[in-house]
Amino acid sequence: MSLLVVGTVAFDSIETPYGKVDQVVGGAATYISLAASYFTNRIQLISVIGDDFPEATLSDLTRRGVNLDGLQVKQGEKSFFWAGKYHTDLNTRDTLVTDLNVLADFDPVLPDDAKNVSYVMLGNLTPAVQRRVLDQLESTPRLVAMDTMNFWMDMALDELLEVIKRVDLLTINDEEARQLTGEYSLVKAAQKILTMGPHILVIKKGEHGALLFMRDEDDHEVHIFYAPAMPLMDVFDPTGAGDTFAGGMMGYLAQTDDLSFDNLKRALVYGSAMASFCVEKFSIQRLTELDVPQILQRIEKFRRLVHFDRDKV
Amino acid sequence: MSLLVVGTVAFDSIETPYGKVDQVVGGAATYISLAASYFTNRIQLISVIGDDFPEATLSDLTRRGVNLDGLQVKQGEKSFFWAGKYHTDLNTRDTLVTDLNVLADFDPVLPDDAKNVSYVMLGNLTPAVQRRVLDQLESTPRLVAMDTMNFWMDMALDELLEVIKRVDLLTINDEEARQLTGEYSLVKAAQKILTMGPHILVIKKGEHGALLFMRDEDDHEVHIFYAPAMPLMDVFDPTGAGDTFAGGMMGYLAQTDDLSFDNLKRALVYGSAMASFCVEKFSIQRLTELDVPQILQRIEKFRRLVHFDRDKV
Repeated sequence: MSLLVVGTVAFDSIETPYGKVDQVVGGAATYISLAASYFTNRIQLISVIGDDFPEATLSDLTRRGVNLDGLQVKQGEKSFFWAGKYHTDLNTRDTLVTDLNVLADFDPVLPDDAKNVSYVMLGNLTPAVQRRVLDQLESTPRLVAMDTMNFWMDMALDELLEVIKRVDLLTINDEEARQLTGEYSLVKAAQKILTMGPHILVIKKGEHGALLFMRDEDDHEVHIFYAPAMPLMDVFDPTGAGDTFAGGMMGYLAQTDDLSFDNLKRALVYGSAMASFCVEKFSIQRLTELDVPQILQRIEKFRRLVHFDRDKV
Repeated sequence: MSLLVVGTVAFDSIETPYGKVDQVVGGAATYISLAASYFTNRIQLISVIGDDFPEATLSDLTRRGVNLDGLQVKQGEKSFFWAGKYHTDLNTRDTLVTDLNVLADFDPVLPDDAKNVSYVMLGNLTPAVQRRVLDQLESTPRLVAMDTMNFWMDMALDELLEVIKRVDLLTINDEEARQLTGEYSLVKAAQKILTMGPHILVIKKGEHGALLFMRDEDDHEVHIFYAPAMPLMDVFDPTGAGDTFAGGMMGYLAQTDDLSFDNLKRALVYGSAMASFCVEKFSIQRLTELDVPQILQRIEKFRRLVHFDRDKV
């Protein structure tokens, strides 16, 4: 099925304990689309860039089945730029520079082809921009997912809550789930969020994996699933891991078009697998050189990591 | 099979966001023995208390199959006492009081029955005391496990490394694994620790679960398994959770007497299940009121939490 992706397409400068890269390709929509492209080649990317963005990256995206008709190119302007430095633990980072550039007055316009998609992934952006995308849809998608961050909870909470109300699936990290609900327990936080609009919630915990909560439409019971992150020798660069996770998950859902809890579990594991590749190299590099056998091999590694026989066999 | 448990039997005063209790029963050996008693009734407890310890707790332990011949009672002296206050996140705490009392000059003496046990769990204690216990064993146990903490890495590293060299299984938390090895990556830290003596390592991550590493004797490959912590509505009191985890794990191993990687996985899940009960109430209370059906039900909950079908069925 078709997947609509909205988010940033940008440049990053990144410093981690393993090295430093300048002005490399980044952006939520880039990571999401690349990860999803291993599962579906019917992707519509909605974003904005300046005239400084590398043609090679754009043609690579196109080759992977990412339709760029909804990618606005602003002549004479610069693409969104972020610079950050990670601490030794790689779980925390300092933002050094945020240059909005073309993003400052981004008004997403959906091409006609993009108005009747089955799956929608709203990457982290101003809630007003996320809402503008939903307003242009002409039919109800099978699933609308959104990502957000604490910044919007501080700056535009009312608008954010309006968008959350309209989506089926929300992904946020553990601290954001706590901030959004005022509950320390993630189980309690999840129960509150599942009354705000979404009936599916994914709480991302970085190196500690991700929790899936789904409210059963029939009995209102909340089902829980936990997907760990793969323990790795080295995490070179965590940038984009959360977006890659979302991209793998949504790509898998668009491919399988099955919203049962069992299939959502698998989607979470596919997302975790894609994220575990993403962090192995800087920027989008590792995501551009994968193949399906490598992904399936990692899925099997995840299975062995967590599966146990309840009884001796 | 028989299980030897060494550790503190003590009093705690605990404050958490959910309340405050004074002078309640605690101690590593208490939690370990109680948790293990659901799997084996051949437990030898080695510890020391003053004459202030409640008779009811001791007779309850005896009733559960915990042999107290190795528990020294010092007349006119006081039991070990710890007071602590947990922060809102329940993952960090301040120690308010540590009164060693009888523990200051504890010299463990193993009764003859305890010198030929099959399983040994050295709870967190001065490395010298842990070593004194190993020195008294008359035959090689099937498995010797030990717990320790950062305090001994700071205060008695050489002695600690000597004991670590002699055990099969080490349990420590993530920060301690990093401190012990100087490696931030837990995979790298595990690889280093598995050259220090133990061929099995359990890294405890609190609310984020536990990682099991086992070095294969044949091909030296390191196998990894991850057991999550159960997401809970409320964690009332995390005191003793790590010891309860170790007790459940060692009790299950003593019961099944199977040291295959598949069975170690199950042991980790049983440990996690026991720990998930422990934190539901203050002190040892929840551990005294369990039954086997409740435990099996929670094991099934763990299975559902992490298992996924790799392919659509």
